[in-house]
Amino acid sequence: MKSIFYSRFFILLPWILIVIIVIDIDTKRSSVRNTASFYFSRMGNVQQQQQQQDARATRTSSGSGGNGTSLPVIYAITPTYSRAVQKAELTRLANTFRQVQQFHWIVVEDSNSRTELVSRFLARSGVRYTHLNVFTPRRFKRTGMPRATEQRNAALGWLRGHRTSKDKGVVFFADDDNTYSLELFEEMRSTRKVSVWPVGLVGGRRYERPLVEKGKVVGWYTGWRADRPFAIDMAGFSVNLHVILSNPRALFKRRGAKPGMQESDFLKQITKVEDLEPKAHNCTQVLVWHTRTEKVNLGNEPKRQQDSVFIEV
Amino acid sequence: MKSIFYSRFFILLPWILIVIIVIDIDTKRSSVRNTASFYFSRMGNVQQQQQQQDARATRTSSGSGGNGTSLPVIYAITPTYSRAVQKAELTRLANTFRQVQQFHWIVVEDSNSRTELVSRFLARSGVRYTHLNVFTPRRFKRTGMPRATEQRNAALGWLRGHRTSKDKGVVFFADDDNTYSLELFEEMRSTRKVSVWPVGLVGGRRYERPLVEKGKVVGWYTGWRADRPFAIDMAGFSVNLHVILSNPRALFKRRGAKPGMQESDFLKQITKVEDLEPKAHNCTQVLVWHTRTEKVNLGNEPKRQQDSVFIEV
Repeated sequence: MKSIFYSRFFILLPWILIVIIVIDIDTKRSSVRNTASFYFSRMGNVQQQQQQQDARATRTSSGSGGNGTSLPVIYAITPTYSRAVQKAELTRLANTFRQVQQFHWIVVEDSNSRTELVSRFLARSGVRYTHLNVFTPRRFKRTGMPRATEQRNAALGWLRGHRTSKDKGVVFFADDDNTYSLELFEEMRSTRKVSVWPVGLVGGRRYERPLVEKGKVVGWYTGWRADRPFAIDMAGFSVNLHVILSNPRALFKRRGAKPGMQESDFLKQITKVEDLEPKAHNCTQVLVWHTRTEKVNLGNEPKRQQDSVFIEV
Repeated sequence: MKSIFYSRFFILLPWILIVIIVIDIDTKRSSVRNTASFYFSRMGNVQQQQQQQDARATRTSSGSGGNGTSLPVIYAITPTYSRAVQKAELTRLANTFRQVQQFHWIVVEDSNSRTELVSRFLARSGVRYTHLNVFTPRRFKRTGMPRATEQRNAALGWLRGHRTSKDKGVVFFADDDNTYSLELFEEMRSTRKVSVWPVGLVGGRRYERPLVEKGKVVGWYTGWRADRPFAIDMAGFSVNLHVILSNPRALFKRRGAKPGMQESDFLKQITKVEDLEPKAHNCTQVLVWHTRTEKVNLGNEPKRQQDSVFIEV
């Protein structure tokens, strides 16, 4: 009797152990797996599922879901143009964006075609991306004219063409010379309609911010044109993807647009001040900075190629 | 006979399975564990072993070894000073450095004491660091004078006081406004004595670089003072920790130092041109850019506090 008990016990025990171990592995691994693949992706080891998407000259990598998590995807729209510091700026941005979960970078070049430099850069960046281009007509490239209007609209057009109401997302306009903390993205991720927060080093002040009372935006702390309906910089707000999709005509405008009014003109089309959602501890923390990079002095650059090799900068 | 065989088989099989599974977990987990703890450290979840080190007003976090890997530690020395863009610049740097394995950031403030802003920032940065400070006498703060001499020397002094020949490391001077790719750190990690590579957007050119023939540096491609023994920017070289320790008198000099000669004066003390190790594909790739951030216009900043709260920028 006793020996039967022991033999059964020794047969059952290991099977129970196996079940426990397998359950243990599955729960623990799934939490680190995303992190690891994410981290290694910076080394270019993750094969992105790149697809030629459609005739609109769109190149995109992987879909909107990814990772199987239910976090909304952050779509960061970055207009960019060819200049000496372009690759440096994109390098800094990618170094930041690589650490943001469920992130999709929409890079829109101001050019007639997608450049080799940006294409190669994005392919090696380790960030999920879509690469677009649209050329700004020369007549719009004057001082005092709003900048990057066509590029931002191209990105909005891509979202409306490639995302549906089933997709969960938050749209943010991430200019290529600003400085972004990682906390900023976690703040904006919960945007239900339109979120706002302070921006550092803008408008001739240390910061600008929405003034908040009882959880509602009631005014603007700004040093410049306080009469703007939304006295906020492009880096100071994010919009839920559903709002972008359900307002298909909301765009950045050239016609009648005054300098510095792009943000206000756009936000007027999709929301009201009283509906804004204040983030960053009721708009009391600066998590993004409107930094500007100096134009590079190339005074000693030789007129003709002097070096024996061509080097991309 | 047959039943005995079956019973033994069913007793042994699960034990074999358990052994296989346990071996499998151990090998797979150890490779992702470092990554995961590293990634989560950016959220401030990793408790750094911070110690008040000594009377030299040094604050450091954890030792030199860490992680149990045998990779040399990269010691990046960053002089910094209080200004409107300081926190933004440090944010961008931390976002990059956080992704470099076995990294130790030595931040040296130009101030009489360690500021609250930088202390708080570093504590939340998720990067292993040492926070020092030394004030540059006012007489040295003139145009044309070399900058950050005292801060770099303080960092070298700290390394000589806190590291021994048993520690494996590579020392790099990482100014707070440059742009660094992650590849740069993997290139410099194998530095045996002194490594060199190209730097973008410097000396009035798209790039400067060491000219390499048969794996040796034979000259300099530069647009400015090509007569310098080492015509290279501060961001263009790294030094093995042993070289720093075995040349205890090698320092950046004030006395007799000409503008732009800091790098050359320092390198002359520790190496010869023919001993330099070219990195970045024989110095044909730009992996670091000498970007400059514009001074912020604070023209609209009110003279007296107008906002109802104080906000750090």
